[in-house]
Amino acid sequence: MLVDLHEFSQQIQQRKEYIDNCLENLLKKEDTYPPVIHQAMRYAVFNGGKRLRPIMVLEGHRLAGGNPESVSTIACAMEMIHSYSLVHDDLPVMDDDDYRRGQLTCHRVFGEATAILTGDALLTEAFVLMSGSTDLAAQNPLRLLQVIREIAQAAGSEGMIGGQLIDLDAENKAINREELEGLHSLKTGALFKASLRAGAILGEMDDQGLTALGQYAHHFGLAFQITDDILDVDGDQFVLGKPVGSDAKNMKSTYTSLFGLDGARQLARQCVDRCHDSLAGFGTEADFLRDLATFTLHRTV
Amino acid sequence: MLVDLHEFSQQIQQRKEYIDNCLENLLKKEDTYPPVIHQAMRYAVFNGGKRLRPIMVLEGHRLAGGNPESVSTIACAMEMIHSYSLVHDDLPVMDDDDYRRGQLTCHRVFGEATAILTGDALLTEAFVLMSGSTDLAAQNPLRLLQVIREIAQAAGSEGMIGGQLIDLDAENKAINREELEGLHSLKTGALFKASLRAGAILGEMDDQGLTALGQYAHHFGLAFQITDDILDVDGDQFVLGKPVGSDAKNMKSTYTSLFGLDGARQLARQCVDRCHDSLAGFGTEADFLRDLATFTLHRTV
Repeated sequence: MLVDLHEFSQQIQQRKEYIDNCLENLLKKEDTYPPVIHQAMRYAVFNGGKRLRPIMVLEGHRLAGGNPESVSTIACAMEMIHSYSLVHDDLPVMDDDDYRRGQLTCHRVFGEATAILTGDALLTEAFVLMSGSTDLAAQNPLRLLQVIREIAQAAGSEGMIGGQLIDLDAENKAINREELEGLHSLKTGALFKASLRAGAILGEMDDQGLTALGQYAHHFGLAFQITDDILDVDGDQFVLGKPVGSDAKNMKSTYTSLFGLDGARQLARQCVDRCHDSLAGFGTEADFLRDLATFTLHRTV
Repeated sequence: MLVDLHEFSQQIQQRKEYIDNCLENLLKKEDTYPPVIHQAMRYAVFNGGKRLRPIMVLEGHRLAGGNPESVSTIACAMEMIHSYSLVHDDLPVMDDDDYRRGQLTCHRVFGEATAILTGDALLTEAFVLMSGSTDLAAQNPLRLLQVIREIAQAAGSEGMIGGQLIDLDAENKAINREELEGLHSLKTGALFKASLRAGAILGEMDDQGLTALGQYAHHFGLAFQITDDILDVDGDQFVLGKPVGSDAKNMKSTYTSLFGLDGARQLARQCVDRCHDSLAGFGTEADFLRDLATFTLHRTV
């Protein structure tokens, strides 16, 4: 269980490069008419993201015994949905962020109207790609429809979008741990869960396995969010590529504001333990997911 | 071909009520958590819309020999996509409209952040519903996937969203007739076309029929846009429920600015003739679509 951080970060890097390559092929070229929207879509997607959600789609499929490359389209669609959510979240009327991972945010480069349309277009394109996955459709079209539905639900008003609404509503307000967890399990957890399950469902994993992966993703999402809050207090803004302290500025309740830095670190470790517990039914084939959870505790971006 | 306007508007009204009823059942209840987004989604959809796109889905299916009620979910999904596009189009950074059909626009009631998320949620929900159409999936899942893909493409960066981007870009600029037609065939025509084709594809219409319906929808979209431009000059703002003259205010090139009122009226009539030409291969079963095109020339809202 003692993960070699350097070696593992290389493993992640390899998968990230594979995803980047797939995205490069799947996203429309910059000169597609009308060019501005296609330039902005690429700008929003190629922003140095960690590609965790697509990596989870591939990994869920591998764990179910499938060939990860066969679900690369679903993986890329998931990243497009994530990217769209960032473009809209960064808007002045939302979180009002100028930088993300050291780059100007989409609306700062292309203007607000184009940024809104770019988010819309990335979300829409995700469904173009998923419904057009001819190989997956040929194998089992009903299963593909089930996956599309699960992903849409996770991204929707009772999932990610609902979470973002609650998050905005929680600014300048004191909320308790339960509310914070509820918020993040929608805003972040739902998409992680849908990613891991999507890959696994397409690989015909049984219900017991799917439930276990769902639990893993839930705790992973929380660990990820807690470390996000920690980095906003304790991180290096040059490594992060965005200013730290934005939560305090926006008067947001966070894990660090509720529990302090040490308390938040302890909570993150507990979530990672829960991730490992969830995988008890799997053998060494789930080591990548185990290490990924542990790795979260040491992330600097 | 001489349509009785009063009788025909009652036919449309009946279909509209059927769609409204389906939407009422399919949209999540207002108290679904988190309630604000579900209230806003209903507000945006129940705004007195004409329901032309869902009516086209039903009509395409009927023309193909199917039972219209079997595609009601796809019809409602289409209206949600249309509603989302209006919510985003009305935003201050887009067209900046305060009223639509006599009601305050979504962002004027719920704020801009919630309006952006409401649009996102309606678009996402359309795909939840379509991918979850179990009856259609049971009949022919591959055909359902094809329809979802066609609808997503029509709504996407090379369809409706692309058209909106070009439209914003064309403000304060003189554009010619070809550019105006290209813009509207993306912004309005693509969704009409996808609606009519979706219903027909799900009813197994042959390619010749589908091509004819596509042509009809293209010309219908143009006729609809031209009459929209005419109403913005010549309409009654109390009937329309929004101020007239907004195109001139936004320095937009329109059919009336390019051809004058009489010229625009003549063009609209030509488009309606093209609609009728497109349906030459159909018998009396296509009379509803013929009348719908003619009716467009007399619309007041």
